[in-house]
Amino acid sequence: MSNPQVLEQKLEEYETLLEIGLELAGTLDPHQVLSLALEKAEEFCHAESSSIWEVDDERQELFFRLVRGAGAPGLASLRIPIDQGIVGSVARSGTAEIVLDVQADPRWTGEPQDGFTTRSILTVPLIARGKVVGVLQLLNPTDRDGFGPEDLRRMQLFAGPLAHALANARLYAQQKDLFLDTVTALAEAIEVRDPYTGGHVRRVVAYSVLLGREMGLSREQLEDLRLAATLHDVGKIGVPDRILGKPGRLDDEEFEIMKRHAADGAEIVATIRSLRHLLPGVRSHHERVDGGGYPDGLSGEDLLQTPRIIGVADTYDAMTTDRPYRKGLTREEAADEIDRCAGTQFCPRVAAAFSRLYQRGEFDLEHGEAVVEGLSERTRS
Amino acid sequence: MSNPQVLEQKLEEYETLLEIGLELAGTLDPHQVLSLALEKAEEFCHAESSSIWEVDDERQELFFRLVRGAGAPGLASLRIPIDQGIVGSVARSGTAEIVLDVQADPRWTGEPQDGFTTRSILTVPLIARGKVVGVLQLLNPTDRDGFGPEDLRRMQLFAGPLAHALANARLYAQQKDLFLDTVTALAEAIEVRDPYTGGHVRRVVAYSVLLGREMGLSREQLEDLRLAATLHDVGKIGVPDRILGKPGRLDDEEFEIMKRHAADGAEIVATIRSLRHLLPGVRSHHERVDGGGYPDGLSGEDLLQTPRIIGVADTYDAMTTDRPYRKGLTREEAADEIDRCAGTQFCPRVAAAFSRLYQRGEFDLEHGEAVVEGLSERTRS
Repeated sequence: MSNPQVLEQKLEEYETLLEIGLELAGTLDPHQVLSLALEKAEEFCHAESSSIWEVDDERQELFFRLVRGAGAPGLASLRIPIDQGIVGSVARSGTAEIVLDVQADPRWTGEPQDGFTTRSILTVPLIARGKVVGVLQLLNPTDRDGFGPEDLRRMQLFAGPLAHALANARLYAQQKDLFLDTVTALAEAIEVRDPYTGGHVRRVVAYSVLLGREMGLSREQLEDLRLAATLHDVGKIGVPDRILGKPGRLDDEEFEIMKRHAADGAEIVATIRSLRHLLPGVRSHHERVDGGGYPDGLSGEDLLQTPRIIGVADTYDAMTTDRPYRKGLTREEAADEIDRCAGTQFCPRVAAAFSRLYQRGEFDLEHGEAVVEGLSERTRS
Repeated sequence: MSNPQVLEQKLEEYETLLEIGLELAGTLDPHQVLSLALEKAEEFCHAESSSIWEVDDERQELFFRLVRGAGAPGLASLRIPIDQGIVGSVARSGTAEIVLDVQADPRWTGEPQDGFTTRSILTVPLIARGKVVGVLQLLNPTDRDGFGPEDLRRMQLFAGPLAHALANARLYAQQKDLFLDTVTALAEAIEVRDPYTGGHVRRVVAYSVLLGREMGLSREQLEDLRLAATLHDVGKIGVPDRILGKPGRLDDEEFEIMKRHAADGAEIVATIRSLRHLLPGVRSHHERVDGGGYPDGLSGEDLLQTPRIIGVADTYDAMTTDRPYRKGLTREEAADEIDRCAGTQFCPRVAAAFSRLYQRGEFDLEHGEAVVEGLSERTRS
């Protein structure tokens, strides 16, 4: 029978591990929990600084999923090739290592940060489903010269739940990105039938999230806005070629048929039960705040925020694009028009957000796509 | 300081829990691991039988996610309303319970299975992200009359990782289903432009997975086949109305344009990086094993299994559907035709699978949709 003191210490460790394991298992968005895990890891091993690196298989690089302690802020965007440094070596071998004399190690590439001296490194691979998904690293014990075998044992226990949390989060993110990529590809394929609006969907998505972010929407709201904007014109699938491709202005009858695309699009989206919340954005993006829009003549509270935003994005793009029967407006002219129609065609709050963005020179495709990119799970950290 | 024996026992428990937690965290498809977890739970508490119930929010029911021990096979499909029985009571209250005299409990609804007598029940809610997602239940200790507080404590520890594994698996499954539902909705919306092929995509999907299952494809292969079949005609988005809607036979020039849909569809799918593996199914579903198909005239090893399967499903549906300029073949005539063209137009192995299904009276939409439904994450258990 072992020494009770040793048993009690082990028991305490296990309790912490169980707790962290539960916290990590309780989320598919583990940023916060990983931070807590690193804090505990530093505490257990009395380390000065710690980090979790993630493997980017495609680019064959390692990047910081999280870094804590001295010098952390300056390092967050560091990326290194997977065959470089001690961290790369552990990622490739899949074997944990302690390096006691860092400066003498041939793999050492120097301090990534001025004013910090690395003495001892403990590096543990994070392995999930038989694959190294990342690396856990501790730097400099605060109370000793170097890390020891007991630190290694502890961190190997830690590595399990960390690895799985990373792997599950990645799988979930991939599934989410696949969904978004596919919706985008199909929406853009549908758009190709309209010979005068190349790239329209992409621009409306970019403009919409720009406006939404300026109006203070949450990440989740922006994700929904992005999806609704992507789908806003899917109903055009039901508009005949002769109308979609007409090189002149539409006559009244043709315009009535064209107008159906809003309700038709909503009908397509309605068949997807989990996307019901996107219906207003698709159905009502041609409504006007004065009630003069279509298909329902909504106004006031009945006209929700998402269609108000997509409405401005959509109209701005339509105004600034050339058509066979008219030249597009300049950006200035379009901005004046949005300002002029605030409160009649356009929601004044959205028009004001547009105006602020425009004044700052930020209302363009490039700025919008940066916001879209930031919503991707791929680039989330 | 506690008694070392008690400490060692606790330590052993924690080790098992850590192990199970890791196993559960290591998968988003936790069926097998849940089974292991139940085995361990029975072992710890010396229980005769055990089960995990899952909450179906939509239908307000509880169903067996897993059931082990005496009478298990007969119970797997049991569903009960969420306001019924002891299990329902715990699911609603979120509080664990031991019932010592089951037969006297007013909530007891009787033995679900003849020849089994329930004496004592231990029921623990599975709570993830603040919500009851299921219930863990143990029946009849083998070495005592009823369960005790120590059993309750242990199972409450067990409940944590189980709950999170269930919740994560469900979230992942929902994301996956959302993806499939959306691809299906958009593919069917694209199909609607073709006035002569209502329901074609749905039937080709059903027929394809029927053939695939008959040929022994794995679940994963069937999922890919389903997706490729769903997307097989998306390229028709590029075919003009006048050709798609022509009420007579296409002339040569029109047919050449129609034929482009295979390559065009592949081009759309190619923009979705994670769906590259579906390209052959979309691009090559009009190839023939004798090399006389389009767009590439593939044959032999170059013509993969997925397009061979979709090819038969697609042609069977086209043959049995009426067109304005010809009546569709009967099922018998179409079956003869597939048999006749095995080895020239159709892959002999696919034609043979078709023939077996047809002989057994199983080659129809209903049988196919049952296979599709079985692939859904929603119905997976």
